[in-house]
Amino acid sequence: MSVPDPFSEFTDRDWQTADPGPPVRLAVIGLGWWVREEAIPAIAAGEFCETSVVVSSSREKAERVRDRTPTAEHALTYGEYHDGVAADVYDAVYVCTPNATHLEYVETAAELGKAALCEKPMEASVERAERLVEVCEEHGVTLMIAYRMQTEPAVRRARELIRDGFVGDPILVQGHMSDSLLELIPDPDQWRLDPELSGGCSLIDIGIYPLNTTRFLLDAEPVSVQGRTVSVHDAFSEVDEHVTFQVAFTDDVSAIYSASHNAHGASHLKVLGSEGEITLEPVFFPWDDREVVLRRGGTVDRITFEQVDQMEEEFDYFGHCLRSGTEPTPDGRHGLRDMRTIEAVYESAEEGRWRSVPAGDG
Amino acid sequence: MSVPDPFSEFTDRDWQTADPGPPVRLAVIGLGWWVREEAIPAIAAGEFCETSVVVSSSREKAERVRDRTPTAEHALTYGEYHDGVAADVYDAVYVCTPNATHLEYVETAAELGKAALCEKPMEASVERAERLVEVCEEHGVTLMIAYRMQTEPAVRRARELIRDGFVGDPILVQGHMSDSLLELIPDPDQWRLDPELSGGCSLIDIGIYPLNTTRFLLDAEPVSVQGRTVSVHDAFSEVDEHVTFQVAFTDDVSAIYSASHNAHGASHLKVLGSEGEITLEPVFFPWDDREVVLRRGGTVDRITFEQVDQMEEEFDYFGHCLRSGTEPTPDGRHGLRDMRTIEAVYESAEEGRWRSVPAGDG
Repeated sequence: MSVPDPFSEFTDRDWQTADPGPPVRLAVIGLGWWVREEAIPAIAAGEFCETSVVVSSSREKAERVRDRTPTAEHALTYGEYHDGVAADVYDAVYVCTPNATHLEYVETAAELGKAALCEKPMEASVERAERLVEVCEEHGVTLMIAYRMQTEPAVRRARELIRDGFVGDPILVQGHMSDSLLELIPDPDQWRLDPELSGGCSLIDIGIYPLNTTRFLLDAEPVSVQGRTVSVHDAFSEVDEHVTFQVAFTDDVSAIYSASHNAHGASHLKVLGSEGEITLEPVFFPWDDREVVLRRGGTVDRITFEQVDQMEEEFDYFGHCLRSGTEPTPDGRHGLRDMRTIEAVYESAEEGRWRSVPAGDG
Repeated sequence: MSVPDPFSEFTDRDWQTADPGPPVRLAVIGLGWWVREEAIPAIAAGEFCETSVVVSSSREKAERVRDRTPTAEHALTYGEYHDGVAADVYDAVYVCTPNATHLEYVETAAELGKAALCEKPMEASVERAERLVEVCEEHGVTLMIAYRMQTEPAVRRARELIRDGFVGDPILVQGHMSDSLLELIPDPDQWRLDPELSGGCSLIDIGIYPLNTTRFLLDAEPVSVQGRTVSVHDAFSEVDEHVTFQVAFTDDVSAIYSASHNAHGASHLKVLGSEGEITLEPVFFPWDDREVVLRRGGTVDRITFEQVDQMEEEFDYFGHCLRSGTEPTPDGRHGLRDMRTIEAVYESAEEGRWRSVPAGDG
């Protein structure tokens, strides 16, 4: 086999086929820092979506955000959203609320016949995630899970190289993601530290990045898992502060991952095969420049990218799918597999032994 | 705390205090490719040792190597070595034979009152490694285990930075080592693939590098482990072709490692703490240029080194210890801890559950 040329023609948006029609109008549900600072600006910058409604627990907060968002017509409370207020001015919803509340907002969207882009993790438990998928299927609405790595050009380029055989047969994967949650959000009472609202912390919130991105890169699925959680800091007494976990994938691929919400911020993903190695580092944070390092046959190449806004790519992909009548690939059943894997990792950490990942139907 | 300056004064050989006296004369036992191509040239290049005797199963091979080694006076068979032939022309032995035979060569050295530098892994089982340590203690001879990372300047520099607080509190470690054994040694009948002679393959032979180097970098010890082995290729049907394993260290440090003797050649070690991250990549192979990458507070620095011969450093350290009457720090009891850890990983892989690492007395 000839060695694939890492610098050959590459189209970032190989998914883009349609001309942009009128933008998909979004109700943005949950107005935390991520939505205000990352999501709403990304929607505005992109071609295929616009924010027409903002929804929050607090009317004042909703109005404040609406007033700063030129396209936004309405500022709703959660109650008004559930009552279908202003449902005629949005086509789809973006749900970025505490994990354990995703179901209720997606359920309302489905009942109103609106497509939903739901943040990862889908929900706080497998059971609720399953209901979330089912309710969308019952009402025939499109559901996409917000895995922004799947539209990140560095990741898509790596995937293409792996498919073209750059690493040979994939054998081992190492991945990591960490940040300092209490520096990002200096509030010990935040929902990510409350297992009822979050379903877990480092693993479910950021350990999901290397896990899901591996699935995307390799077209492989988790078969069994073994994890370990460590919590030292008081604020993390009820959730996993640090986590390490092993995943046995299909095709005899083994993966090891770590994640922490209370450490130096870092992220990487490395795929090693019979012939070569691809490292993405940094990769998962929108504020880091992504880099792809290629090693094969004693040579090292680095691909740097004109950085894109990861959230803009994601929203445009979602909007493009809706405009072009295509189903997004990180759909609800795809997300369910992560939920089942994560739940199995938490169980294995409690039991100190390997757990199979239930196959389920997603 | 002020951030340690990664580029401040650093003395590679901070262990070197004595002036080189006359070199320690070595009997080199086992004349495989590693010894011929790496060890004997390194001994010749260094200051503190010289090869005075070579020992092999084959007299012809021993004579061939002796004739190419200017300082070598004698070429012995294993039988002659055990009989004490030419014992007056060497002060110490370097044992680089199949793992399961280390004990018998070190035993003879101890009985002859010679110090021993024994390759890693010490032996093929914990039980035999314990006897190896005991026989040296009984005869009062120095035993060093050949962990060449402990005298590698890049590793020592990283250790100094970690001790000075560069990463803050260490939290997570990721490490990896892989190569293609059948390309290096194209013989499916080689001893590394025979569990009786090797005690295992990828884990015990190269997974030991990230494991031992973590212990050295952090002054931390393995407490419990969980591993998984995968063997696909026919040549590896009786041993671990690929391995992934988690190690819970003292001080709440979690580590995840992978190793493979049938993959693209690669090596790295990453220590992530509360404040920063140190990555050594590549690190474990003598033929790769070692690099240390430092990340902290949003900045990235790379320390490159004038590369040294890792084996020369190791032999000089051993010779220097003997000349100066200092005990080498990677001693037999230090090596025993790795053996116990590795055995626990293999057992945990069979059982699918976590295993404690027996504390033992080393």
